[in-house]
Amino acid sequence: MLNFNFHNPVKILFGEGKVTELPQNIPADAKILMTYGGGSIKKNGVYEQVKKALANYNVLEFGGIEPNPRYETAMKAVEIVKNENIDFLLAVGGGSVVDATKFIAAAAPYKGGEPWEFIAQAIPVQSAVPLGVVLTLPATGTEMNKNAVITREATQEKMAFYSPHVMPQFSVLDPSFTYSLPKRQVANGVVDAFVHVLEQYMTYPVNSPVQDRFSEGIMLTLIEEGRKAISLETPDYNNRANITWAATMALNGIIASGVKECWATHKIGHELTAFHGLDHALTLAIVLPGFMNMVKERRTEKMVQFAERVWNITEGDDMSKIDLLIEKTDSFFREMGMLTLLSEHGIGLETIDKIVERFKSRGDERLPLLEDVTLNEIGDILKQRI
Amino acid sequence: MLNFNFHNPVKILFGEGKVTELPQNIPADAKILMTYGGGSIKKNGVYEQVKKALANYNVLEFGGIEPNPRYETAMKAVEIVKNENIDFLLAVGGGSVVDATKFIAAAAPYKGGEPWEFIAQAIPVQSAVPLGVVLTLPATGTEMNKNAVITREATQEKMAFYSPHVMPQFSVLDPSFTYSLPKRQVANGVVDAFVHVLEQYMTYPVNSPVQDRFSEGIMLTLIEEGRKAISLETPDYNNRANITWAATMALNGIIASGVKECWATHKIGHELTAFHGLDHALTLAIVLPGFMNMVKERRTEKMVQFAERVWNITEGDDMSKIDLLIEKTDSFFREMGMLTLLSEHGIGLETIDKIVERFKSRGDERLPLLEDVTLNEIGDILKQRI
Repeated sequence: MLNFNFHNPVKILFGEGKVTELPQNIPADAKILMTYGGGSIKKNGVYEQVKKALANYNVLEFGGIEPNPRYETAMKAVEIVKNENIDFLLAVGGGSVVDATKFIAAAAPYKGGEPWEFIAQAIPVQSAVPLGVVLTLPATGTEMNKNAVITREATQEKMAFYSPHVMPQFSVLDPSFTYSLPKRQVANGVVDAFVHVLEQYMTYPVNSPVQDRFSEGIMLTLIEEGRKAISLETPDYNNRANITWAATMALNGIIASGVKECWATHKIGHELTAFHGLDHALTLAIVLPGFMNMVKERRTEKMVQFAERVWNITEGDDMSKIDLLIEKTDSFFREMGMLTLLSEHGIGLETIDKIVERFKSRGDERLPLLEDVTLNEIGDILKQRI
Repeated sequence: MLNFNFHNPVKILFGEGKVTELPQNIPADAKILMTYGGGSIKKNGVYEQVKKALANYNVLEFGGIEPNPRYETAMKAVEIVKNENIDFLLAVGGGSVVDATKFIAAAAPYKGGEPWEFIAQAIPVQSAVPLGVVLTLPATGTEMNKNAVITREATQEKMAFYSPHVMPQFSVLDPSFTYSLPKRQVANGVVDAFVHVLEQYMTYPVNSPVQDRFSEGIMLTLIEEGRKAISLETPDYNNRANITWAATMALNGIIASGVKECWATHKIGHELTAFHGLDHALTLAIVLPGFMNMVKERRTEKMVQFAERVWNITEGDDMSKIDLLIEKTDSFFREMGMLTLLSEHGIGLETIDKIVERFKSRGDERLPLLEDVTLNEIGDILKQRI
């Protein structure tokens, strides 16, 4: 096992009705900016429940945060936080709303120049406005981690930043708040969480049986519950609860502790969203099978373990197990409604060239998370997926 | 899944050499009381490494904390904390040293009468001196939770208390610090952690596949690594690392989130230690098979799942699976060196009567954690184990 530090002080309030505990978790004198997305929370009752719980607070609102949240939009909220002396941010929404709110929290007190620089130049964040979360879409795990991904419209760039200062003080996870989601978004969440696990698992063995079995347990649950979610006519509480908890556990640091990670599939996928606006999970479903095929000769051991323990593939030699593994994983994504080939989205060689050029232009300092994947291989991975 | 709150802010510093990070985690001006046990840390080099890391601090010491730490001993340290204005406690040892230190941390600022009352009367702790941990024996999980168990010599009572205020600020888990442990103590840790998992798992189904698979993953690891630890001539780093991480994950709240717990085996076991001084893990190994036999008609579903997924028992009907499950679990404890019958320790009906009387005399308010186990059944469970 590798050495590690693990520290995750996010408080989780899990279950139906937990939104009523907001007042026990936000200072009584806080001036709150409540952030949200396109307004679906006003149609499904979540908005009213949050406002009711916050009846005794001074609450301002900032709506309109888009999927793949934009830097330009978030910067408008930064101005409000500064001008109105906001001292608590409450994100009510999915991963995009939470990530934008994390950026707002870090950008408001930022003492440098333009806040984009702490993302693009990976400058450590020194402080942030405290924030809480009411989650409406299980997927990214952002409700219990220090990560955020922001898209800059002007330059078509989608990039991540990380800071312990933007970890939520608490996150309310009420599975019933996900009932109004279209099936496509539930499926997106399942695929996103599944690939999160793989970026921490399908790497190189370091003798970490607890972490490996936790990862396998999350993936087995996502397969079972993802299929159930797609097949059910009406939402089921336990189904949504299990997807929610699996997605949170997939990216809160537990399964990453002491193992080797590689976030290549995410980094390549981000570029497909940046250039073509594809859903984040869909980009992962497109890239991953190509990625698996590229690394199968060097990551054989973990891939065979993945095949055996998650997909119950026990026949044949290692390479035939892995080929079947790739097929089954791709099929699962298609069952979840993903069109997993670039050509199915009208994307071809031109985009691939642009993506490879972009990675090259950023230089080596952006590559450490790609681990064993070379720049030339990025093009080869994508060409397999046309 | 049941509703739950989860909040575990303990920082884990895991791996060889992590003790050198102590100064980044203790305030520079802290006056530290370092607590430890019978002095084994002075023989195996841990004491020197801790003292070296704390070279720039004002450090007082309190040694001599015994296994099943005594209230009477801990109260002497409480006096030192008060008289010397100690503002940080550093526990260097196993579960007993850590638990005693948690009690010292809570008792020093306690404003009520005799501190025993917040244990015996379950009065919520209001504050505690901050504490950190350098762990030398993986077993109890106390390094990453809010629990402590204290024994009062005068009345032969062993009781637990719980407070978020006594969660360690950090815990250093260096697997190499366990190398000098006798095999008996490693085996104790494996059995203790294994039964911790079962008290959170072998209850009633609530549709919690992530938590169930995490529990099964920890148990599978403890079986594999426990057997390896017993068979190895010299300690192996990864073996000790995996036992350590499994034991920590077994009782840090993760696998308890959203499921039904029942701590009956622990509560009954504590009485065997209180009356006869048996090792904690040994008492669990004695009680558990009898307990399993008692509840098998009502906890059938989770017990069959345990049989199938952990012990790979797939043949026969439910009750024959469970009977084999009990046999295999008992055999595993015996493999770990436990003599799992009361008669093997010269204990008979007289002690059983005293234990049942004690539970009865405490009245109903001490029973909530026993869930579905009645007072009369406690006697029956123990009689099976003579």
